[in-house]
Amino acid sequence: MKRILIIGIGAGDPDHLTLQAVKAIGRADAFLLVDKGAVKHDLADLRRDMIEAHGRQPYRVVEARDPERDRTTPAYASAVETWRSRRADLYEAFVRDELGDGETGAILVWGDPGLYDSTLAGIEEVIERGTVTFDHEVVPGITSVSALTARHRTNLNRVGRPVHVTTGRRLAQDGPTADDVVVMLDAHCAFADLGELGEEFHIYWGAYLGTPDEILVSGPVPEVAERIRALRAQARDSKGWIMDTYLLRRLPLT
Amino acid sequence: MKRILIIGIGAGDPDHLTLQAVKAIGRADAFLLVDKGAVKHDLADLRRDMIEAHGRQPYRVVEARDPERDRTTPAYASAVETWRSRRADLYEAFVRDELGDGETGAILVWGDPGLYDSTLAGIEEVIERGTVTFDHEVVPGITSVSALTARHRTNLNRVGRPVHVTTGRRLAQDGPTADDVVVMLDAHCAFADLGELGEEFHIYWGAYLGTPDEILVSGPVPEVAERIRALRAQARDSKGWIMDTYLLRRLPLT
Ligand SMILES: C[S@@+](CC[C@H](N)C(=O)[O-])C[C@H]1O[C@@H](n2cnc3c(N)ncnc32)[C@H](O)[C@@H]1O
Ligand SMILES: C[S@@+](CC[C@H](N)C(=O)[O-])C[C@H]1O[C@@H](n2cnc3c(N)ncnc32)[C@H](O)[C@@H]1O
Repeated sequence: MKRILIIGIGAGDPDHLTLQAVKAIGRADAFLLVDKGAVKHDLADLRRDMIEAHGRQPYRVVEARDPERDRTTPAYASAVETWRSRRADLYEAFVRDELGDGETGAILVWGDPGLYDSTLAGIEEVIERGTVTFDHEVVPGITSVSALTARHRTNLNRVGRPVHVTTGRRLAQDGPTADDVVVMLDAHCAFADLGELGEEFHIYWGAYLGTPDEILVSGPVPEVAERIRALRAQARDSKGWIMDTYLLRRLPLT
Repeated sequence: MKRILIIGIGAGDPDHLTLQAVKAIGRADAFLLVDKGAVKHDLADLRRDMIEAHGRQPYRVVEARDPERDRTTPAYASAVETWRSRRADLYEAFVRDELGDGETGAILVWGDPGLYDSTLAGIEEVIERGTVTFDHEVVPGITSVSALTARHRTNLNRVGRPVHVTTGRRLAQDGPTADDVVVMLDAHCAFADLGELGEEFHIYWGAYLGTPDEILVSGPVPEVAERIRALRAQARDSKGWIMDTYLLRRLPLT
């Protein structure tokens, strides 16, 4: 039986790696590295460093080019699905062509594999196709959400209260749906466009969490929104990419 | 300056520990171990094992007895607050009496310190009192949520969709507030009392995640709810305590 390990590597700090992930990296005969294009080279480098640090020789590194995703269409979910099918092709080829019988392949996933990541869905799709047979295991990772709250030294939730995790797109549509809302995948600073509602919220914002470029800002939304927007634009221009996430917290709690 | 490290240790598997947590444990001169009474001895043992495995001699282990919490009152939040103040007393005494100048103390927190845990709030309270001066750092940990989805090899969220994290108490009050809802701290199997609503949901349930006693069940709520309830009661009786969490997922997605 071939086996695929889907390994969460944490959200930016190489020391986010768990002992379980270190051991999983050590078990792999081959790694699939998907290159996300020039701007994400830094992220690929982190994966390469982890493989070098924790891989057990002899291992192979297989590189593949990420399919382009159509980011212009408003049909976000279906664009993601098309892209995911092409991702599944990569996984299928990896299992079929690169792994021998009884061998173990590994895919290193940013943060936790369960949170806003399409690797698992891609693997599911390969399984449904039934063209290759393999087993798979998932190794949990530190999420960017935990990285965010740790660096701000704050709780995610208030005592006995819920927390909502959503996307920038949804926040723009629905506004904050709870007293504590974490927002990911926000390319448009939706927190800055909440209007009067924003006045009730505090924001805990973090970019490049866990990396040497980390930026943290917190404060009442009306006071810090423009500063975050400016910092974000500047950082993205100079690095070529940005990853940021934030917690919106209604204060005081009503 | 004295320093306190609040270290997330993951949700049950000693290998959930991150390299950052391992290093943090290695930096501590003293550990505060809060004993939660007989039923939670197993959990204290895990912490002790981690300290033995990763602590750097010479270090001290300070044991304290957790204040009793009034679990009978309906005023859940205020009972938690009183209890937290008494917890803060323990932290204050630890910093004042057990740490020398320039020394580092550590508190090992289950899962991630930001998620439904009161250590950070207790530390905040000590800071507000202003009776002792110290710095603190938070080390993120693998949450039981990530452990749950990894073991079920499923995503937490659907593409571009939100996920809500809540408590058993809230689920009983409000029902499932999203298509994907994670429930923690549920002592009463609220998933089994959703009535007709429950028919729309699939449950991914896990107890003692990451430990040798782990139990996993998944399926449509109406089909598996009673089995989970029975398994849960039986496991709790034989071990004396239980920790379980679950994801409710509306299927098919409307
Ligand atoms: C495709 S999702 C992947 C999330 C990842 N699986 C996790 O567990 O955090 C990418 C989003 O995660 C957030 N993110 C990931 N890493 C981050 C970091 N180091 N700093 C800030 N945000 C981060 C950003 O919101 C980004 O848009
Ligand atoms: C006080 S909260 C602490 C949560 C922890 N900070 C985390 O990040 O997972 C305790 C709740 O977490 C969940 N939990 C923690 N560890 C678990 C485990 N190993 N298996 C199942 N549920 C767990 C249960 O819902 C339990 O009621």
